[in-house]
Amino acid sequence: MTRAPVPVDQCGMARASELIGDRWTLLILREAFYGVTRFADMCADLSVPRAVLSQRLDQLVQAEILQLSPYQDAGSRTRFDYRLTEKGRELALVLLALMQWGDRYLRDDPAPLKVVDSKTGDTLSVALITRTGRVVPLTRARAVATGPR
Amino acid sequence: MTRAPVPVDQCGMARASELIGDRWTLLILREAFYGVTRFADMCADLSVPRAVLSQRLDQLVQAEILQLSPYQDAGSRTRFDYRLTEKGRELALVLLALMQWGDRYLRDDPAPLKVVDSKTGDTLSVALITRTGRVVPLTRARAVATGPR
Repeated sequence: MTRAPVPVDQCGMARASELIGDRWTLLILREAFYGVTRFADMCADLSVPRAVLSQRLDQLVQAEILQLSPYQDAGSRTRFDYRLTEKGRELALVLLALMQWGDRYLRDDPAPLKVVDSKTGDTLSVALITRTGRVVPLTRARAVATGPR
Repeated sequence: MTRAPVPVDQCGMARASELIGDRWTLLILREAFYGVTRFADMCADLSVPRAVLSQRLDQLVQAEILQLSPYQDAGSRTRFDYRLTEKGRELALVLLALMQWGDRYLRDDPAPLKVVDSKTGDTLSVALITRTGRVVPLTRARAVATGPR
């Protein structure tokens, strides 16, 4: 019998999966990373029912992944759009890892987007590294207990 | 008006989100990465209804993320367990990025697990790197069109 090394309720991976492991939630985060902040724009991009979008956005605000930010178009009343918090921006690594995997395994054509360093233009990818910045193949990764504290 | 740079149906990130963007699916993948391969063990770890587990496992086999592998305990008939394919193993980067984020933002106590290099014992983390292996801060990542081909 083989069991997971930590129970679901104590595992950071499981907690994150429970919070953002939802198709619409991930697609909304995708919009946020692409700089789409307004309800109507997300609605149009995703063809998502308004009630579903509204409920998922509320959850993301509640989780402090998105925050409401006021804006005002000329001649209109103040409205609110949705912006990533620091906690939300750090999810970019999860989304970029998803993109890398999806582009590699779920398509036959070349990917429409690549990720670059905004400062140098270098093409970027997601990888496992050591504390000194050495890249390690994924096959060598092992999850081990951090031990007695 | 700001819209996503690629429509959902052409985006690798969106395709991956639609395939594995499900709480149970991510928790099952977590089991698989921890080496838990048998239905009964996953059921016990996750407290998931058998019908739900069965349906999600079928989807993952269908998507060629898991494959059925025969085994036989002494005195029993041949049974099948679920093992990651190469396509499935490559999802480790997504799961490790989720773990890193969850351990950082969804807990107050120290994380129970760390990820190490099985060859050297070095502690590993998920990061964005250039083709030459230089680490780049997440804030500098931009998704840009790959352009005319």
